[in-house]
Amino acid sequence: MAEQGDERTLKWWGWGYDDQQPDRAGLEAVAKGVHERLGFEPSGVVEAVNLEDLDLPPSRLTPTPTLSDLFSDSPRDRASHAVGRAYRDIVRTIRGDLPNPPDLVARPGSPEEVDAVLGWCEDSNAAVIPFGGGTSVVGGVEARLPEDSDHAGVVSLDLKRLDRVLEVDPVSLAARIEGGATGPGLEGQLREHGLTLRHYPQSFEFSTLGGWIATRAGGHFATGETHIDDLVESARMIAPSGEWKSRRLPGSGAGPSPDRLVIGSEGTLGVIVDAWMRVRERPRWRANCSVLFEDFFDGAAAVRALAQSGLQPANCRLLDATEAEINGVSADGSSVLVIGFESARVPVVERLDQAVEIARDCGGSPGSIESRDAEDRAEGRPGEASASVDWRNAFLAAPYLRDALICSGVLTETFETAITWDRFDEFTRSVLEEARRVTAELSDTPVEGPGSPSVSCRITHAYSDGAAPYFTVLAPSRPGAEVAQWDEIKRAVSEVLDSAGATITHHHAVGRDHREWYDRQRPQPFADALIAAKRALDPHGLMNPGVLVDPGGH
Amino acid sequence: MAEQGDERTLKWWGWGYDDQQPDRAGLEAVAKGVHERLGFEPSGVVEAVNLEDLDLPPSRLTPTPTLSDLFSDSPRDRASHAVGRAYRDIVRTIRGDLPNPPDLVARPGSPEEVDAVLGWCEDSNAAVIPFGGGTSVVGGVEARLPEDSDHAGVVSLDLKRLDRVLEVDPVSLAARIEGGATGPGLEGQLREHGLTLRHYPQSFEFSTLGGWIATRAGGHFATGETHIDDLVESARMIAPSGEWKSRRLPGSGAGPSPDRLVIGSEGTLGVIVDAWMRVRERPRWRANCSVLFEDFFDGAAAVRALAQSGLQPANCRLLDATEAEINGVSADGSSVLVIGFESARVPVVERLDQAVEIARDCGGSPGSIESRDAEDRAEGRPGEASASVDWRNAFLAAPYLRDALICSGVLTETFETAITWDRFDEFTRSVLEEARRVTAELSDTPVEGPGSPSVSCRITHAYSDGAAPYFTVLAPSRPGAEVAQWDEIKRAVSEVLDSAGATITHHHAVGRDHREWYDRQRPQPFADALIAAKRALDPHGLMNPGVLVDPGGH
Repeated sequence: MAEQGDERTLKWWGWGYDDQQPDRAGLEAVAKGVHERLGFEPSGVVEAVNLEDLDLPPSRLTPTPTLSDLFSDSPRDRASHAVGRAYRDIVRTIRGDLPNPPDLVARPGSPEEVDAVLGWCEDSNAAVIPFGGGTSVVGGVEARLPEDSDHAGVVSLDLKRLDRVLEVDPVSLAARIEGGATGPGLEGQLREHGLTLRHYPQSFEFSTLGGWIATRAGGHFATGETHIDDLVESARMIAPSGEWKSRRLPGSGAGPSPDRLVIGSEGTLGVIVDAWMRVRERPRWRANCSVLFEDFFDGAAAVRALAQSGLQPANCRLLDATEAEINGVSADGSSVLVIGFESARVPVVERLDQAVEIARDCGGSPGSIESRDAEDRAEGRPGEASASVDWRNAFLAAPYLRDALICSGVLTETFETAITWDRFDEFTRSVLEEARRVTAELSDTPVEGPGSPSVSCRITHAYSDGAAPYFTVLAPSRPGAEVAQWDEIKRAVSEVLDSAGATITHHHAVGRDHREWYDRQRPQPFADALIAAKRALDPHGLMNPGVLVDPGGH
Repeated sequence: MAEQGDERTLKWWGWGYDDQQPDRAGLEAVAKGVHERLGFEPSGVVEAVNLEDLDLPPSRLTPTPTLSDLFSDSPRDRASHAVGRAYRDIVRTIRGDLPNPPDLVARPGSPEEVDAVLGWCEDSNAAVIPFGGGTSVVGGVEARLPEDSDHAGVVSLDLKRLDRVLEVDPVSLAARIEGGATGPGLEGQLREHGLTLRHYPQSFEFSTLGGWIATRAGGHFATGETHIDDLVESARMIAPSGEWKSRRLPGSGAGPSPDRLVIGSEGTLGVIVDAWMRVRERPRWRANCSVLFEDFFDGAAAVRALAQSGLQPANCRLLDATEAEINGVSADGSSVLVIGFESARVPVVERLDQAVEIARDCGGSPGSIESRDAEDRAEGRPGEASASVDWRNAFLAAPYLRDALICSGVLTETFETAITWDRFDEFTRSVLEEARRVTAELSDTPVEGPGSPSVSCRITHAYSDGAAPYFTVLAPSRPGAEVAQWDEIKRAVSEVLDSAGATITHHHAVGRDHREWYDRQRPQPFADALIAAKRALDPHGLMNPGVLVDPGGH
C-alpha cells in the first residue's frame, strides 16, 4: 500500500500546511487580540494532539493485492480523511477524537481505477465516501454511517490524482476538467490558454471541481450564473451500476436535465470523474466601488434593486458593520456594499455608474470608483486601493485564521441560507437575534454589550427574487464540550431557517449535519424519487451512506 | 358530462379560431403566392373535413357519476384533444385521420379535482395525458400508447380551467400562477401589477405555463436566463403518489434540485398545477439594431462573440437570407442579426453600442439604432421602424400562416437543436445539406434552383458555449402521403443531429416523435434513474405512457 506524499506537508487536522499554524505563544497572542477586538475572553489555548499519539481503531479492510498500490491505511491518511473542516470537525480532531476514520484511503489515478475500486468495494461490502479536498463543513466526508448499516468497512476515495485539465475548447469557451483538480490546479492549467473558470468558493485553495459539482458550490459572481450548476456543460460520473456520461450541450429541452441530478448528489450516486465546464476569457476590464450604508437593511434594499436591475454585477456583496470591521474594510459602524463589474471584452464603467446610482437611490454613500483594464490603465478615473481588495484577501485568509482562533479557545463557525426578498428583513433579524441569544446562553456571556458573542451577517449571493445571507458566530468555546455547544446553536438557528421556509443551505450542501432539516425541506415525492434513483444507480447502497437519503435494505 | 364552450370557437384541427381560416379561394391564392415567392408548385388545395363527418371510435370510458361534470366525450372535445400541432398532426386531422382520440376529456377546476380525476383514472386503469394548449409539435399529447399498454382507455386532462395568477409578490418579483394559464391570460393578469413573465414561445397565444414547464420551453430572451427552467422559483405537481410542492427559494444547494426533475417531465410524473415564477417589471428602456451579414456564418461568429461578451442582449437572433426574405426583414441576400436590449431600470443604449461594435468587428453592417423608453421619448437618437418589429410580427403569425400553407398543399415544418460553437458551422452546413437533399428527393423537386424546396436556418438562442439553430422546411407536399414524407425527412435530419452529438431538441421537447433519438442521447444510467423515479411517483404507469421512458410492467 502507498501513502501519498506532498512536497509541503498539509495539516492532517486543519486548514493549509503544517508550517502555517502559530505556536503556543502565537495562539496566546491571537487570544489576546480576540479579547481586544471582539470584547470576549477566549476559553484558553488548546494545541492539536500529535499525529503519533492518535489512537485510531484498526482498519477492518485489506485491499486485494492487484489493487493494493491504490490504497493506504497509514494513520496520517486515515486521520486526514476522517472528517471535513467544520468547526465541529476541527475541535474533535485537535483533541484526537476521531471515532470514524476510514479503514482505507484509495487514490485511483484514472476513471478505470475508480471503477476498479468501486468494484472491489462492492465485492467487499465496503461503503465508499468520495473525497475531493475534504473541506466539507457539513459532515459530508465523515463515515458516520446509518445505524442499520451493515458495511464491512469504509473506503475514502480520494480523487486528488485526477487533477488535470484534459481538453480545452477555446472556440466554445469550455474545458474538460478532472474531478480531483483543485482551484489553483485547474486555474493554473487554464491560464496557459488565457482562460479561467472564475469559480472561487472560500475553500478554493483545496477543494476540487468534483466536490464543487457534488455539493452545488457557490461561486465568484454575486449575481447571475454563479452556482457551479450553471457552469456544467456535461458531466461524467462512475456509478456502481456503470458510467454516466452526458452530451456536451449548451442547452437542451430533452427531458429533465441529466446533469441536474448529478449536481448536488453529494457522492451518493457515484464518483464525478470529469466534466466539461464553461470557462471564460480572463477579465481585462474591471470597475469597483464601495458604498456605505448606515443601516444594513438599506444596503439589502440596494442589493435587491441591483439584482433586479438586470445589470448583473460580478460582485455585489454586503457586509454588516461587524463583518466590515472584522474584515478591516470599514470601522465606523457602516455596512459596506462592494459592487464590481468585470469583462474580457468591453469596458464596464458605465454599468458601474448605473449600479452606483441605484445604490445611492437606496440611501448609500458611494466611495470613489476604481476602474482599470488589465494593464492598470485607468479608464479616466483615479483608481485607489478599495475595500473590495481588502475584503477578498480577508475572505481567502479566513479559514487559516479560523484554525488559530479555534486553538485559542474561540467558537468560530458560519451558517448560510437563502430566502425570497419579501421575507428577507424580518427573517434575517430573527436569525441574528436567535443566534445571539442561544450563543450567549451556551457560552455564558451577556447577550449584548461588553463580553457578548459576535454574531454578524453578510449577503454573499443575490437573485432577482431573493438573497443568500451568511452568518458568522464568534464566542468563547466551552473546552471539551465544543461540539455540543455548537450543535445546540446550529440546531436552534436551523429551526428558525426551517420554520421560515428558507433553505437549510445555499452552498454548503446537506451532508450529515443538515439531514434532519433537509428531510423536512424537500418534497416527499422527490425524496421517494431520489431513493428510487439511488437504488437504480447504487443497488448495494455503497455510496456515501447517510447522506441525502436512506434507501434502506442495507 | 359537460362540453366546454368558447365565446369564439377555436379550430378543432389547427391554429387559432375558426374564423381565421381562409376559404378555398383564399387557399388557392396562398398556393399561387407560394409559387411566386418560393418557386415550387404546391400540390393542391385540401380543406379540413367537417367535424360532423369525423368517424371517431366510441369512447371506452364512462366517468363515475360524482365526477361526471368534469368530463366530456363530445366529438369536438375528443377530436381537438387527439393530437398536437405538428405538421404531421395537422395533415392527418384535416383528412379526418384520428385513430387515437382520448376517450374522455377532463377539465378539473382545482388541484383537488386534478387529484380526484387521477384517482378515478387509477381506479379505472385509464392512462392520463396532461393537456395545456395542445400545441405540442412532438406527439406529446397524442394517445399513441406503447404496444404493451393494457390501459382501459385514455383521459386527456385539460388544465384550461386552472388559469389564474393566484398570488403576486411585488417585492421578490415573483408570482404564483396556475398551470393552465395561457400566455395572454397570465400576462394580462400580471400587467395589472406592472409585471410580466416575458416568456414568449411561438405558441404563446395558446400554450400554458404548465406546458412550458413540462416541456422546458424556450423563451423571449436570446441569451441569459431564457429557458423556462430558469424562471421557476418553485413548483407544485400532483403525482399519482401524492402532492409534490417545493419551497420558494431564490437559490439552494440542498441536494439535487427537486424542480429540475419536474421541469421537462412532459406529463410523465404528474400534473403541474401551479408554480411560483420569477417575473419582471415591464421594460421601460429599449434599444435595437439590425446588422446585415453577407455570410450567415460571419453572423454566427457575431452571435458567438456577443454571447461570450457578457453583455446579455435580450434579443440576438440571426436569420439566414431565406428566413430574412420570407419574414420580410431583408430581401438583398443578406443574413440579418437582430440585436436588442431592454431594461425596466436603466438606459441600455451604451450596451447596444458595445454590442453593435462587436458585430461590426465580425464583418456586419449595422443599420440605424432604435432607442426609446416606454413613452417613446428617444434617447438622443432618431428611432425608426426596425427589422426587429417585422420579425416579431412574422414570428407570432407563423403558426396561422402554416395552416393556410398546409391546406394549400405545402409541406411546412421546423426542427431545432443545440450544439457547441466548435462544431456549429460544419454541423449547420451538413444539416442544411441533408435536409435539402432528402426533402427534394421525397418531394420530387430539384435539390437547388427553380422549383427546389426552401430550407432555411435561424439562430434562436445563444450561449457562451454554443447556440440553438432552428430550421424551416417548405416543399410541395405529397397528397395523402404527407406523414410518411415528413417522417422520412425528420428521420434523416435526426440522424445527422444524433451522429453529431447535438440534442434532439432544444425547446420542442421529446414527446413521442423524438423518443428514438432521445433514448440514444441520454446517459443510460440516467434513463434507469428516471424509470425508477417514475415508478415511485406513478406506480401504475398512468401518466403519459410512451413519453420519455417505458417503465414496463403495465
